[in-house]
Amino acid sequence: MQDFIFGGIEADDRQLLATERARWQGIRHLQRIHPLDPEPGQPVGIRVTVGQGVHVDRVAAYVTSDGSDPAGERGVAQRGQAIPLRRTAIRWQPLIWGYVEEWQGALPGQPEGTLVQYRIQGWHSQIPGPGHWSREPNMEGVPELPALYGYHVGRHRTPAWAQEAVLYQIFVDRFARGPQGAPVHDGWLAPKQLNRFLGGDLQGITARLDYLAELGVTALWLSPIFATSSYHGYDTVDFYDVDPRFGTKADLRRLVQEAHARGLRVLLDFVANHVSRDFPPFQEALRDPASPYRAWFHFHPDYKHGYRCFFDVASMPWLNTDHPQVSRFLVDAARYWLTEFQVDGYRLDYAAGPSHRFWSQFRAGCKEAAPDCWLFGEVTRAGDDLRRYVGRLDGCLDFAFARAVRHLCAQAPPTISLTDFAAFQEREPAFFPADFLRPAFLDNHDMNRFLWLAGGDKRRLRLAGGLLFTLAGPPILYYGTEVGLSQPRAKAPHQEEARHPMPWGSAQDRALRAYFQRLIHIRRGHAALTQGDRRTLALDPAQGTWLFQRQAGPDRLLVAVNVSPEERRVELPGPAFTELLSGQAAGNHLALEPLSLRILQPQEGPS
Amino acid sequence: MQDFIFGGIEADDRQLLATERARWQGIRHLQRIHPLDPEPGQPVGIRVTVGQGVHVDRVAAYVTSDGSDPAGERGVAQRGQAIPLRRTAIRWQPLIWGYVEEWQGALPGQPEGTLVQYRIQGWHSQIPGPGHWSREPNMEGVPELPALYGYHVGRHRTPAWAQEAVLYQIFVDRFARGPQGAPVHDGWLAPKQLNRFLGGDLQGITARLDYLAELGVTALWLSPIFATSSYHGYDTVDFYDVDPRFGTKADLRRLVQEAHARGLRVLLDFVANHVSRDFPPFQEALRDPASPYRAWFHFHPDYKHGYRCFFDVASMPWLNTDHPQVSRFLVDAARYWLTEFQVDGYRLDYAAGPSHRFWSQFRAGCKEAAPDCWLFGEVTRAGDDLRRYVGRLDGCLDFAFARAVRHLCAQAPPTISLTDFAAFQEREPAFFPADFLRPAFLDNHDMNRFLWLAGGDKRRLRLAGGLLFTLAGPPILYYGTEVGLSQPRAKAPHQEEARHPMPWGSAQDRALRAYFQRLIHIRRGHAALTQGDRRTLALDPAQGTWLFQRQAGPDRLLVAVNVSPEERRVELPGPAFTELLSGQAAGNHLALEPLSLRILQPQEGPS
Repeated sequence: MQDFIFGGIEADDRQLLATERARWQGIRHLQRIHPLDPEPGQPVGIRVTVGQGVHVDRVAAYVTSDGSDPAGERGVAQRGQAIPLRRTAIRWQPLIWGYVEEWQGALPGQPEGTLVQYRIQGWHSQIPGPGHWSREPNMEGVPELPALYGYHVGRHRTPAWAQEAVLYQIFVDRFARGPQGAPVHDGWLAPKQLNRFLGGDLQGITARLDYLAELGVTALWLSPIFATSSYHGYDTVDFYDVDPRFGTKADLRRLVQEAHARGLRVLLDFVANHVSRDFPPFQEALRDPASPYRAWFHFHPDYKHGYRCFFDVASMPWLNTDHPQVSRFLVDAARYWLTEFQVDGYRLDYAAGPSHRFWSQFRAGCKEAAPDCWLFGEVTRAGDDLRRYVGRLDGCLDFAFARAVRHLCAQAPPTISLTDFAAFQEREPAFFPADFLRPAFLDNHDMNRFLWLAGGDKRRLRLAGGLLFTLAGPPILYYGTEVGLSQPRAKAPHQEEARHPMPWGSAQDRALRAYFQRLIHIRRGHAALTQGDRRTLALDPAQGTWLFQRQAGPDRLLVAVNVSPEERRVELPGPAFTELLSGQAAGNHLALEPLSLRILQPQEGPS
Repeated sequence: MQDFIFGGIEADDRQLLATERARWQGIRHLQRIHPLDPEPGQPVGIRVTVGQGVHVDRVAAYVTSDGSDPAGERGVAQRGQAIPLRRTAIRWQPLIWGYVEEWQGALPGQPEGTLVQYRIQGWHSQIPGPGHWSREPNMEGVPELPALYGYHVGRHRTPAWAQEAVLYQIFVDRFARGPQGAPVHDGWLAPKQLNRFLGGDLQGITARLDYLAELGVTALWLSPIFATSSYHGYDTVDFYDVDPRFGTKADLRRLVQEAHARGLRVLLDFVANHVSRDFPPFQEALRDPASPYRAWFHFHPDYKHGYRCFFDVASMPWLNTDHPQVSRFLVDAARYWLTEFQVDGYRLDYAAGPSHRFWSQFRAGCKEAAPDCWLFGEVTRAGDDLRRYVGRLDGCLDFAFARAVRHLCAQAPPTISLTDFAAFQEREPAFFPADFLRPAFLDNHDMNRFLWLAGGDKRRLRLAGGLLFTLAGPPILYYGTEVGLSQPRAKAPHQEEARHPMPWGSAQDRALRAYFQRLIHIRRGHAALTQGDRRTLALDPAQGTWLFQRQAGPDRLLVAVNVSPEERRVELPGPAFTELLSGQAAGNHLALEPLSLRILQPQEGPS
């Protein structure tokens, strides 16, 4: 089956080449600073690439530390300070068959709490005219604007509770409804249309908190609940109100209280990048070209709709999040729910849109209001593009794990080798700081459900789930995954199909639920799985078997995996293990059913 | 018109992606050593990448310094010494959406004259079985073999005369024939078929030496003259004989003597990578599987023809150039012509095929026999892939310049911006050591002639020629370019079409020849053009004008370029310049004809 993932975890080759080539166009900074999370007084190195389309022999950064927007021209600062950069290397870039220059400079150290803001410009001493501003490549195909960069001085910590979290992603309109958490009408499981409100709400969630607590998850991530123009909520109309179709502020207050009473944290989904067309400041800006709200958006005739939009969708105007008023407005709104409703953090939608400067300010504002809140971003990329958010956010969603586990487990034959999967999982932890958390998942509301992709084969889902809970960063269960919710329609995949209503009662696969409950229980009981190092003990790609170990201090688990459709055996290092999913003792030669995973704990005493 | 370049200077996107991704497969060394050209006693750092398809936790190099082939297994050397490497970094590679490991180690310093040879292997301490050998990616699509690496300790110099050279590339069968250098039959300029011998020979070249000396070139590069099975000579049958269709050894001796008498050097074309199917050792190996010559080739049923071939062409079996007997044989043959016939060096065909180890040995052998010989390779790549030949060869052909100048000048509109072209030319010199020469050209026997690509527009050819002589490494004129030889047939391009016979007498464009003669004269008279630094003084991409300066000590020239099809003006920094192509004084405002280039020398006295 053809997989479908909105926003492109892994673009097709043409898109991938375009994305990579875009890095070598013009003047790029790509937020390359060192250190990523500066301490007070510490100078900050910045790296800049001068690539195709420009020919300059001077580069400078204009930098401010007083909150004002840095400005300058050809090396003379109009606001703030001009810092000259120097050319440090010429590199060859095969994708463009050309040379790019690397330039470096150092911004002076600043006191704790400073928001440092800067812009970067290059020019040629012999060629008259205005300088070339650095821009950041975007994936939306819209004109690139001169970039404003920034970072916040002084460390904010990722909360300790996040490290141990097991998340449950709730698509509010599709989970449960009303005081009893029951679907309101008979057609709940067979909606005629998926692109409209179907009735799920906050009361429904509150009514199902016992279910969630019993499942064992520790935190809920709710899809956007603010006043909105659409059932999914990803276009906000009022950042200070709950959408009446989801409930009231009182409903939210009660949900958070009841959740906290059960040890469950509640995270909201916050969309800073764009708003609904019905967002009142946008309406005013649209009506009145003289409105001060014009500056909150990017109005320009070059844009298809006359203003910049999220992926050219006219109903989702793109916010100018680097405008001081917009930043302030969004940070204040985020603080409001943290402080007034005690929500525990945010999943930040399309975090790749707003600048690092914006997220620096956003995080500082949120952490000041609620030091223990958790803020992680949706950035559908990986590697360096993700690591650069260290110091800006507490972490980012782990799309690379989703991609890899889908390639390995969802279909036969796997489209990634077991060798590559194992190497990926062992290499990745050395790439990221330990406290930069990457919540991981098998699927979400923007891609085909895993079970659908696996042709309904629940062995594959269990196997992938086992890998999620034993290998990946805080695991996320997308609502319904634990009870076998898939995509009833076999037709061409589309993101709406991943948002079918939650089955309740006899519509649930209880055996599957018990499996996930057990996985969650094991995960929560073992530091080896949340913090342990990882080491391959045996790997046989031809057989499709892999035995790896996770260990944190005295806590040590072995995980045996069989990705083949045949029964396999693996040798365990000694006879004294208990298999934790079944609770049974495991023999020296462990038999593995087709497409299965076993978690082994050494028994007490010498092994 | 559709350009055609055999061997792919710039592959299409699919091929480019495949090539780049191949770097991240398995264990790769890619000849990354530091320093590139080791001094006696100096330890040599090696870098290795562990990418997709392997999962190892140990990497070692097996190294010898006594000429024997290094061997070992899982860290134990069977010949030579095992040097453990350590993992130094994990990097993200967006093209494969995966992590790669970097490993590093240091090979001990060795005395002057040592040929250091090594192989690299990785293995996993927990996974039994033989280790994974590093392999080098190839562009031929044939199975990759475990790689043998090597370098020679002690410096060989690029000859000083090469820096100043102006080369003329002669396709022997197509240049001139007989004692008078005249074509032998009336149909010389209208051959029915291009893929057979047409009669050009060594005597013909000798007869035309006065023509070449008058043109002003300083060195001839002859296409292969050894006994061969084809008119182009790129499949050698006997490395110790001249093909009778080209002449005799006496003819060669006389050609070299007569050339030297006129101050012209003579370079031969040497094909080490593969031979003709009629090469006697191959015939013996083919007949007798027990022949010791079997090891001179790569016989294996996995190959399409049962043995490895050059781009799967059955008539061109691939030599096992890392076999000690083959290396010795080839080096001895190369030395033979250097010492017995006083040829001045070699253009090394398909240099990307044989290993760096081979070229290290080859260069040492040639330089020992003829310290002043010039050895440059044909490597149809650029950037790092070229720079790694520093220490192995005196230089490589500059395919990047050919690509760029064809994009800029051959067609309207240009397919590279003037900004990018200018930036490329200014960035490149900082990337390569000054003595790593890159002979540059507009076209050669493996691609469409520039003039054909330019639709016959000689203004474009003059413009490109001007850039070749004022910006690029030792310039090469492909025979006939100077007199307007193009591709008479307008049909679909094919490499044969670039090999039409040389026109003589009234068939030549004498005005064009005078232009190139003048360019050569200017090039030879100005150190600024061969060694000078380069600096942009004005650049107007919208107008298509560029003014740059080249300067070496007191020698300073300005070059004014107009790539637009309109007349343009550029401002000169002062009124006192002489235009060297015309010999006329240039005004303060220099008028530039459409598609033209002017070379300006400051007049004596204060300017």
